This record gives sequence, structure tokens and C-alpha cells, in this order.
Amino acid sequence: MKDDQTTQPTRSKKRNREADVMDAAVEVFAQKGYPAASIQDVADRVGVLKGSLYYYIESKEDLLFRIVDDVHEQSTEILRSVQELDVPTIEVLGTYIERHVEWYLKNVKEVTVFFREWRHLTGDRLRIAKERRRGYEQIFRELIEAAQRDGDIDAAIDPKYASFYVLAAVNAVPDWYRPRGSDSPRVVAETYADMTVGLLTGTRQRGARVASRAA
Amino acid sequence: MKDDQTTQPTRSKKRNREADVMDAAVEVFAQKGYPAASIQDVADRVGVLKGSLYYYIESKEDLLFRIVDDVHEQSTEILRSVQELDVPTIEVLGTYIERHVEWYLKNVKEVTVFFREWRHLTGDRLRIAKERRRGYEQIFRELIEAAQRDGDIDAAIDPKYASFYVLAAVNAVPDWYRPRGSDSPRVVAETYADMTVGLLTGTRQRGARVASRAA
Repeated sequence: MKDDQTTQPTRSKKRNREADVMDAAVEVFAQKGYPAASIQDVADRVGVLKGSLYYYIESKEDLLFRIVDDVHEQSTEILRSVQELDVPTIEVLGTYIERHVEWYLKNVKEVTVFFREWRHLTGDRLRIAKERRRGYEQIFRELIEAAQRDGDIDAAIDPKYASFYVLAAVNAVPDWYRPRGSDSPRVVAETYADMTVGLLTGTRQRGARVASRAA
Repeated sequence: MKDDQTTQPTRSKKRNREADVMDAAVEVFAQKGYPAASIQDVADRVGVLKGSLYYYIESKEDLLFRIVDDVHEQSTEILRSVQELDVPTIEVLGTYIERHVEWYLKNVKEVTVFFREWRHLTGDRLRIAKERRRGYEQIFRELIEAAQRDGDIDAAIDPKYASFYVLAAVNAVPDWYRPRGSDSPRVVAETYADMTVGLLTGTRQRGARVASRAA
């Protein structure tokens, strides 16, 4: 650890130290769980005195909120980047799942902390997190509706249930993924994208499905 | 509440009281969360003295284990019942998801306690719960493989990832389902079954998908 106590921290040094604090918080929350973790644990991991952490953060909940906020921010950024692609909406949906799962798996600890612990937020922080979740789910649902207007997804699909189904499946990836397993984040991401497109384009009305089997 | 303290409980009375105890445990764990709940809370809800609960159960963890065990038992029973159907395996899979989701939604509190709290089990009880989860996932995976041999599911689908995807989506239903919402358990169950069959039959190799778009 470098000794930078003697000089006034520059802007970039502050940013680096802040990143160190966030990385340490992710590690500590992932290992102990948010309720059992303390600011002291985070300070120990960064290698600074507890008091000096308050230069960067307000409270333990502030740390959790920043992790939650960062995951939301990055997810929204991925959503924005795929919406700019000049391809049919069904391809936008597939590419979105692909980039999203790959990002999840490259940041599996942070994402795991996000999903396991976000309910511990309180007050305004909890309200903001819930609003962002809803907004996010809404955008995904609107993409499904747009692909239905394009004729790529059957009108029989309920966009609400389809988005619940897909997002629950995708959000559970960090639960079972083992970084040392045989498949890379890229392979898992492509597989999930293909299954999502398969679900969205392969689902037909009951009547239609039974009729096509009979044919 | 009937007063049956004065007579020796008959076999069926014991069974009824045991069911009351389990129902109360589900309510208490759902409301307070397992870590914060106590045997005293469960006794209060049943309307008996704490000491008399030990006639039916060994400990708070025993109550949780019985809930977990009951959900596993019922899920396995549904799996067994659909495997006896004389229809193609892809229909078995669809019917399984349908019955499974409907059962979940008719027992949403018990299932929610199961998913939120099972990790609090310890020792042999935790080991048994984990083994049953794995066994269950394995049967689902084998059904996918059988439908691939029938030619109803593309060989490009990875049975492991497909089972992770489907089971995560289905297991999350109790998280968002509101019993007073507009759709009955039956409608949600049918929708989930159709989406699962859509995923399993609609997913193609990347190359094949791109080629079919170009055609």
C-alpha cells in the first residue's frame, strides 16, 4: 500500500481510493452478508482507519446503495447501447441479453451482492432502487411490445409475463455460475440470448401449438 | 379453538393439530422471516403453550425442515404424476410446468418461505435439502434430453442451461405474484407452460437462426 497521507489527495487519487473502498465493500458484503458486515471490516480490507472512510462515504447503507446504484447504472447503459443498434427489435432483445449476462458474469460478486442485499436499503434509497427496477422492467417490456408490432413475436405472448420470465432467469445466473467452471461468460451469455429469442419467437397460442403438432 | 386437552389425542386429532402447527409456522416465517421468528410466536398463533409444541416438533429448525421437505415432496409428486402421462415428452414438460406453477400459486406463502429461508438449514437437514434440489433439477434435465431424442427439442440446446433458465423463471413466480391480481393461478400456469415449450422448441443454433431470418 502506497503512503499518500502526507500529500493532499488529488482528484484522481480520490477516485482511485473511492474505487478501492467500493471493491472492498463488495468483497466484505459478499463474504459476510450485509447485515453482519461492518464499516470496520471494510476499512480493515482497504487498510485505512475507519474514520478516514467517512471522507468517501456517509454510512454502511451508503456503501450498499452505491453498489446497487452502480449495477443499475451499468445495466441501463447496456440497455441504451443496444437500443442504438440499427437492427430489428428482436435482435436488439437478443443482443441485450447477451451483453447483460456477460457483464453480470464478469462482475459476479457485485451483482450477487446487489440481488441478495438490495432489500436492506431503507427510506429514499429503497424508493429509488425500486423505481429503477420498475423502470428497467418497463423498458424490457416495451421492447417485447415493439417486436410484436414488427411481427417477430406472436401477439399471444403477454409482455408482462414474458419479461418476468426472462428477467428472473437472467437475474439468477450469478446464483449458479462458477467462475472456474468450464464455460466462459461469453458462451453462457450467447446461450441465454438464444434461449430468450427462442422463447419470444417460439411461443404460440395454445390452439396454434396443438394444431401445429397435429399437422 | 376446541378444547381437546382433556382427552388423549386420537391419531387424526394429532394429525390435525400437526397441520395447524405447520400452517402457523408458514404464517410466522412468512411474516417475520425465519431468523427473527421464535417457537413462542408459532405457539401463540396456534393458541397453545410453547411446551406442548414439542409434542409435534423438535426445534424451530425442524419446523423449517418440514416446510422445505413438504414442498420437495409435493413437487416430486407432481413430477411423478406427469411422467405417467401417455404423451410425447415435450408435452410432459409443458404439463409439468403448468401443474407446478399452479401448485406454487395456490401455496404461495409456503413456497415463498421455502425459497427465502431454506439456506438457514444446517447439518444433515441442509445436506438433504441440497440433495433433493439437485435430484429434482436432474430429472428436469433428463426430460429435456428425452425430448431432444424425440426430435422435439433442437440438439443445440444445452440441457443444463435450459433447466437453469426454466427453473429460475418458474421459481421466481411467488416473488411477483399477487393473489388479488387480475390473473388466476391457472392462467399464469398456462402462460408459463407455453413460454417454456416456446423456449425449448423455438431455440435454434445461432447459425440456423441467422439463416432463417435471411431466408
